[in-house]
Amino acid sequence: MAFLDSDFFQPLDSALVSGDPEAIRAAAAAFNAADLAEFIEHTHDEDGRHGLKLLQSLPMELQAKVFGYIGPDMQRVFARLIPNRELAGIVTDMSADERADFFNLLDENQQHALFQSLASREREDLRRLASFEEGTAGALMTSDYAVVSSGMTVASALALLRNTAPDKETIYQAYVVDQDHRLIGVISLRNLITSAPGAMVDGLMATGLVSAHTHTEQEEVARLISRYDLLALPIVDDDERLVGIVTYDDAMDVAEAEATEDMHKGATVGRLETGLKTASPFSLYRSRVQWLVILVFANIFTGASIDHFQQTISSHIALLFFMPLLIASGGNAGAQSATLMVRGLATGDVTAKDWGMLLGKDILVATGLGLTMAAAVTVVGVVKAGPDIATVVAISMLIVVLMGSIIGMLLPFLLDKLQFDPATASMPLITTIADVSGVLIYFTVASVVLGL
Amino acid sequence: MAFLDSDFFQPLDSALVSGDPEAIRAAAAAFNAADLAEFIEHTHDEDGRHGLKLLQSLPMELQAKVFGYIGPDMQRVFARLIPNRELAGIVTDMSADERADFFNLLDENQQHALFQSLASREREDLRRLASFEEGTAGALMTSDYAVVSSGMTVASALALLRNTAPDKETIYQAYVVDQDHRLIGVISLRNLITSAPGAMVDGLMATGLVSAHTHTEQEEVARLISRYDLLALPIVDDDERLVGIVTYDDAMDVAEAEATEDMHKGATVGRLETGLKTASPFSLYRSRVQWLVILVFANIFTGASIDHFQQTISSHIALLFFMPLLIASGGNAGAQSATLMVRGLATGDVTAKDWGMLLGKDILVATGLGLTMAAAVTVVGVVKAGPDIATVVAISMLIVVLMGSIIGMLLPFLLDKLQFDPATASMPLITTIADVSGVLIYFTVASVVLGL
Repeated sequence: MAFLDSDFFQPLDSALVSGDPEAIRAAAAAFNAADLAEFIEHTHDEDGRHGLKLLQSLPMELQAKVFGYIGPDMQRVFARLIPNRELAGIVTDMSADERADFFNLLDENQQHALFQSLASREREDLRRLASFEEGTAGALMTSDYAVVSSGMTVASALALLRNTAPDKETIYQAYVVDQDHRLIGVISLRNLITSAPGAMVDGLMATGLVSAHTHTEQEEVARLISRYDLLALPIVDDDERLVGIVTYDDAMDVAEAEATEDMHKGATVGRLETGLKTASPFSLYRSRVQWLVILVFANIFTGASIDHFQQTISSHIALLFFMPLLIASGGNAGAQSATLMVRGLATGDVTAKDWGMLLGKDILVATGLGLTMAAAVTVVGVVKAGPDIATVVAISMLIVVLMGSIIGMLLPFLLDKLQFDPATASMPLITTIADVSGVLIYFTVASVVLGL
Repeated sequence: MAFLDSDFFQPLDSALVSGDPEAIRAAAAAFNAADLAEFIEHTHDEDGRHGLKLLQSLPMELQAKVFGYIGPDMQRVFARLIPNRELAGIVTDMSADERADFFNLLDENQQHALFQSLASREREDLRRLASFEEGTAGALMTSDYAVVSSGMTVASALALLRNTAPDKETIYQAYVVDQDHRLIGVISLRNLITSAPGAMVDGLMATGLVSAHTHTEQEEVARLISRYDLLALPIVDDDERLVGIVTYDDAMDVAEAEATEDMHKGATVGRLETGLKTASPFSLYRSRVQWLVILVFANIFTGASIDHFQQTISSHIALLFFMPLLIASGGNAGAQSATLMVRGLATGDVTAKDWGMLLGKDILVATGLGLTMAAAVTVVGVVKAGPDIATVVAISMLIVVLMGSIIGMLLPFLLDKLQFDPATASMPLITTIADVSGVLIYFTVASVVLGL
């Protein structure tokens, strides 16, 4: 973090070096849970034992909170270091969704041991939450939501919330359910405290709720929360029964992770489990090598195209001067169109059915761009190689930019249609296609104009 | 939105065609504010008059909420269509931050007219909020925060919140201030309703708050809210007095806009005022043309490099076959490194001071990638052009991938150091630099190995 310079954690460092538990506790009191987790993750001395010492010196409830902020790699290390009964204590205090995520990191033996040490309520909860597929609303949701029953008065609803508050992720939205636990409305705490104590919840609650199913994709969940400015999104099962909520902070994390993944995919970087700073060289190698090798072979087509025009090139070697500039322009225009489209699809600004309208607009824009760039290279062409080659270059430029732009616009739609993530390797794929077509267009135009 | 298919708005469409105000109101009641805004933005018939009719038929408070969700272009259109007194009514009911954003869209005459129609309280508020620079916490914050004074009891704090609730953006966090309005703590509504009515606020509040200044950049504000899972971040002036809050939903919007802008910049697309769907062809042209032309001229260097090696190429025309594959690999490896770095810097995962460690790791990873790809092209080289050229291609590949990767890693750091946004045109710049160096490396290696 830019705002966490090296002096920031100085007091904690000194306290840990001293080893005095009281001093450690006092130093830790000045930090937030998120900061403590950051410190613990980046104290790599003695296999994380320094961090462990800090964690264990914290008050029990804070331990659970800090543990929830720690990344998966370090959580796995700690799961081996912390005695089972102590771990169960931490896990019990964690929020239900973080608990389930942590549980899914462990191997079968560890899961079994931990399971035995938990109370039956947490066990039940864990069994249910841990069973949802990664990347769905079910895996993201927490079961710590506040609920009141249809038919309650404001006073009894407030009393219920007061009593259950300590266990709940948020009590600012209480969901109203019928006797089958089906979601029928929501009432805000703000609404409850400003209403008459004797009023009925059913008369005050908002209906027509935005909700999602356990199998809804997490990106969609994040989009709904952002679109409707929700604090939390209720999640229902196939019988429309309320089973959990996803809170805005988890949605923010999903949106950030999605944006990162989309950018990485765009540049052919595969999934990374952790951030760049903590990723091992081998996992970085693995995430990058596959597409690089695929694209090497794709580029053989460009080489073969050039090879095909050996004769043309040999007799007009001056044509080579303009080749990089032409094929790069096609690729650049294509990357622009593709990026606009990929991001538009990801944020929901455009949908697959808009392709016709967008294609029309793209052709208009690309024609304008192509003409501008043709004008620019004509000057260079005339100075460097005379009017004949300048004509070839200008005509090729217009066609290449149009072609690159249209390919860049359509490829993400095509990937979307074929059920691939439109971000997948879009840029290099488009550059490669633009390269091949650039070479073909250029030398074909040259053959025609120069009469070869 | 993917989930909004064309049937979704069917009832609204029919009601508007019928023209019956009662029917319109009834149909609108089934939709959220965000959905109504979406509908209004995309009903382009009769210069937005259909949308205007819908807006004007809504209850007053909902009008303000829907108006806040409408994009800037449409807001500008409506500002001209709605009579001034009616507009002042809507503006008064808007949240303070959205009101200020809208105000900044208007021309001077419109601002003056609107200003005259507002009550003094809104006027004062507007003058203050509208004065902050775009992109800072001050421009993003709202002044509708809940505040209680140091020295209050729980009961009086709750009574105060109850009375002021209707005007506040959120009452779930009440800020505690001293007599100079300096921020000293925060107390959650959850904490208030579960505490004894006679307890003092000062004994219950949390201190050591995370806060930001009015001039803090909005990206940093979003990062703080996401990092600490805050509902709202308090904003203070230079005298540490509380002047506003930024809520999580605005932070989500900033984070999404930032991610979009970073992706666009990476592919040399300039700032767009609106989404792709509503952007005019000319604004799209303008956002794309500048860098495309700059890169055309940058690519002249690649052409000149090839030109320089005319002799080598003429005598070994088979070398051309491998040229696209080599220079593309350098560019692709560079784009991968750059993307990892740009995103790492944007999310705060890595900072400028990590460059040494990351460079070491990148060299290790790139060497592995280079060796793998050298092995792959050796096979192609031997089959296509014999062992001599295969050797040239393999050696060049290793150097080109290493070079591309290192440039890709260092350029974002350099841009960051020079106070540019590291995302600016990173990919095409790196591709261009990789192209030039790829050509130079390849033909230099060829000259040496083939003894030309």
